[in-house]
Formats: sequence, structure tokens, C-alpha cells
Amino acid sequence: MNQRRAGMGGPSGLRRKAARVRVGRMRGGRFSTRGDSVAVEEPMEVRLEVPGDDGIREHPVSVTMRTPGDDFELAAGFLFTEGVVIDPAAVADVRYCRNVEPQEYNVVTASVRDPAAFDATSLTRNFYVTSSCGVCGKASLEAVEVMGCQPVAGGTFTIAEDDVRALPDKLRTLQRTFERTGGLHAAGLFDGDGRITVAREDVGRHNAVDKVIGALVLSRALPGSASGLIVSGRSSFEILQKAAMAGIPVVVAVGAPSSLAVTFARRFNMTLVGFANRDGYNVYSGGDRISRGDGAGE
Amino acid sequence: MNQRRAGMGGPSGLRRKAARVRVGRMRGGRFSTRGDSVAVEEPMEVRLEVPGDDGIREHPVSVTMRTPGDDFELAAGFLFTEGVVIDPAAVADVRYCRNVEPQEYNVVTASVRDPAAFDATSLTRNFYVTSSCGVCGKASLEAVEVMGCQPVAGGTFTIAEDDVRALPDKLRTLQRTFERTGGLHAAGLFDGDGRITVAREDVGRHNAVDKVIGALVLSRALPGSASGLIVSGRSSFEILQKAAMAGIPVVVAVGAPSSLAVTFARRFNMTLVGFANRDGYNVYSGGDRISRGDGAGE
Repeated sequence: MNQRRAGMGGPSGLRRKAARVRVGRMRGGRFSTRGDSVAVEEPMEVRLEVPGDDGIREHPVSVTMRTPGDDFELAAGFLFTEGVVIDPAAVADVRYCRNVEPQEYNVVTASVRDPAAFDATSLTRNFYVTSSCGVCGKASLEAVEVMGCQPVAGGTFTIAEDDVRALPDKLRTLQRTFERTGGLHAAGLFDGDGRITVAREDVGRHNAVDKVIGALVLSRALPGSASGLIVSGRSSFEILQKAAMAGIPVVVAVGAPSSLAVTFARRFNMTLVGFANRDGYNVYSGGDRISRGDGAGE
Repeated sequence: MNQRRAGMGGPSGLRRKAARVRVGRMRGGRFSTRGDSVAVEEPMEVRLEVPGDDGIREHPVSVTMRTPGDDFELAAGFLFTEGVVIDPAAVADVRYCRNVEPQEYNVVTASVRDPAAFDATSLTRNFYVTSSCGVCGKASLEAVEVMGCQPVAGGTFTIAEDDVRALPDKLRTLQRTFERTGGLHAAGLFDGDGRITVAREDVGRHNAVDKVIGALVLSRALPGSASGLIVSGRSSFEILQKAAMAGIPVVVAVGAPSSLAVTFARRFNMTLVGFANRDGYNVYSGGDRISRGDGAGE
């Protein structure tokens, strides 16, 4: 592991997360022109170097639109939660492409020590051809199990109900770029005392989750069984999948869950909370991990 | 064109868009258990049949998580806006996979009459390998031009500023599943008088846009130069790309734009509005298509 490169998740101070644009503003029937901040969106390509019999081979993995910053965490988190890198401990190095000037800092190459840590089939999994009409939610859940995802162990992680209600405001205070642009999703990890330990922003909600899980990958802190995941938006199949891959037992969302997020959480023994705010929340699965003032789990 | 199958965008009444789940509800310090509705999320596979020298070949295109309903529009819109089908007039038929019972209605096969209407390179475009470090916003814009996307013609489509402000409430009244679940994005088309002509919902915001553009594909109403697009969330590169592919000159978003959405709109001569509500909006590009009460364009 190259700590200098990967330890902090990339040179996040290097690139701007917000950009100034000229905007026409209509309010109360009056039109004016002014400068305003928008969230930066730029493509990032992820590549993976894998050692083989003929030397090291570089595989193109994905191009994703993201907000610059924490790029190494994004790459590491994506590679792990999408099942491209099976063994996160095998990630040896994460760096920007260094062939060409001017450096755009938009191509990130990760490398693994061991070819067995790379699942080549993951790169074509989305183009899997079913010979039947059988694709359905159940098949998606089974596909996640094939990726090595197991039900989360029960019981050890708990959080108090008032700490759950406090999480959205805590995350919001850490969303510095959102405050300026209104245009970023956020994700964070929290501990059993309701403290947010990692928070990341991105124009893409999956990217924000990949960044926080990538922080666990790069700091060798997996599985995340002592952490919960909070997201600023809705919860869906993919958000739950990413949390489950990381062994995170609790997902708290400020927005609504989808049906498949609920099914996923129940099948994988996870706690799923939706519509969380200071006044309350809904719990769709695994309420026993939330302790109430009256001493009863939900 | 099989009108019976494709004309209405699929048997949308066949599948539920919301599901009932049991939920624990914490509000005001009191805990209760009740039934609640969540937005349905299920995978849908899109396939494309293309005629060739050896007969018809079926290409797997994508698996996307979506809310059931308007599935044929979703397939047609996705195939067109992602550049898989270059000529939307060549779409001959859209149908559910019919090999197997029980029918899950989660595999949709479109067919094109002419092999030249299919761009096989589009299926691997995301895995395009750059030999340099050059991937950047500019490269993304150029890639869209390679897909055949042209700057939108100026001047013919205009909308009054008070009609712009009224659009979000109009879209909201058409979001019937959102009202029950809080969990769906919406997209709509509107005309120059501010009337919403098509509205669709989905757990995925790109899917909602594909569904409304797919409605244009299936009704042979492209290019969409007499329509604007409204989205319930934020605007990003991909939303602008999809509108530009369809020749739609105006995009109105309830949320914030990204930097690349602004750059895209300016380069492709499109009007981009953000933070739209009954009190006002911001305009980031192409303000001349919005007419103000004082007779001046912005």
C-alpha cells in the first residue's frame, strides 16, 4: 500500500468541487444576473492492473461521472462493492494515470497483488444473457450472493433511537459543498454512539457511498460491522448491495426506500431506516439494532 | 410497428408501481407499527434484435433497476438516447420476452428493421480505453457529438416565465405513485403553453427521462423540438445528453444543475433552468427561449 498516495483517498484539495457560473435569477417577478456556484461533475475512468503470466495487464473497468475529490476512495470503493476486486486486502496501490501532461486527474489506476483477487466476469456481468424470461428481484438478490455477499451478523451493532434522529442534521453540517451548490448527495459512516466518522459528497449518490466504503478499503477497516451507513437521499437495491458487501449492518436514509431495498435488507439481516429526521423515522427491517428510551428494541 | 404492443408504452396497468410493506414508525417519541407503501424497484433487461446475413441476432443491451410500467417506452428511450439505436424510425417492434411461463414482464426485446440502425460500438463505449490521461468533461461532450448529437436549433420554441414557474406544481399533481411512496423521480414533456403532455415516474431519474423520450420514439414524434423536458430532481450531463439526442431545446429542473450540465447546455444551444418553483428559477443557458411579462427575453 502506498500510504502517501492512497491513505487520504487522493489529493482532494487538488480539484475544485464547486465551480462559479453566471446565472440569470428570477425571483418575485424581478430578474437579475449574478455569479453562482454549481457542483462540479466530471468523468473519471477507473482501471485495474492485475499481475499475470505475461506481466501486468491493465483492464479498463468503468467511466463514471463524479465530483472530483476522494478519487482514490471512489475507485477502491467501486472496485470492491461492484465485485471487481473480490479481496480488498489485495489492493496494493491507487494512483492517477501518469503518462501524459497536462495531468487531468481523471484517470485512476488501482493495482492488485494477486490475480485471484480480480473477478474478470464482473466486467461483463451487466450484459449477462438469460436464456429465459427469468430476470427479477429474486435473481438480483441471488446474483449478489454469487458475488460473495453474506447476511450480516446480528446483534453486535446497536444505536439509540435519538442518535438515529440526530444523524441527518449531523450529516448536513458536514456537506460543505452542498451548502454552496444545492447539488450534491452525501453519504457517511456512523458509529454506535451516533458519531459520523466519515462523510463524503458527490453528484452521484452511488459514488458518495463508494467513497465512504472506499475509505474503509484503503484504511484496511473492513468489514464495516462496527459502522452504519447514512445517505442523504433514497435507498435502493444498489445502496443496500454496497453496504452488504462491506458488512455494514445498518442503513439510514433521509429519503424513501424502494421495495427491493426493503426485500434486500430483510434477506441479508440488515437494519433499514427511511425518512429519518429529527422528529422521527420509519424502520423497515432489523429494528432490534435500534434501542429505545424505554429499553425495548423495536 | 406493432401498435397494440408498443403504442401505449407497454401494459402499464399490468404491474404494480407501489407495494405494501410492514413498517415501524417512530414519531414524537411514540413507536407504532403499520402498513405503508414503497415504490417498486425491479430489474428489467433490454435486448435488441437486429437482422443480419445469418438471420436475426439478439443482442443483450442492459439490465437496469426500474419501476414497472411504461416498459416499452423505457426500452425504446434508453436504446435511442444511449446511441444503441441510431435511427429511432427503424424500431419495428417492442415486446416482452415470450419464451417462458410464468411471465415476469421483466425482459423487453426491441427489434430494428435495418442493421444500419444499430451501433454495436455503443455496447462497449463505457469501457473505451484511452491510451492517454485525457478523459475529461470536454472528451465527454465530444463523445456525445460522435453519437450524432447536434446543437439544438434556436428560436422556434419559447415559453412564458410564469408558465416555467407553474411547471413543477403541474408535474407534482401527475406524480400519483410519489404521493403514496415518496420514492419516485418524475419527468415530463411540456409544450410552449406550459401544458404537460407526457409524465412518467421511476425510482431512477434517468429511467423517468428515458420513458418520456421513449414515448416520442414510439409515437414517431422525434425530434422533440416543440417540447421542453422537466425533471423532478437535479440536472446532470446524462439528462442533458438524453434531451439533446431527442432534439429537445429546453430542460427545466426542480433541483440544481451540475457544472457539466451547464457546459453541455451552452455548447448545444439549449436552455437550462434550475431550482424551478412557483416563486422563481435560475436560468443557466439559453434564456432567450423564456419570454418575460415585460416583453424581454432573459
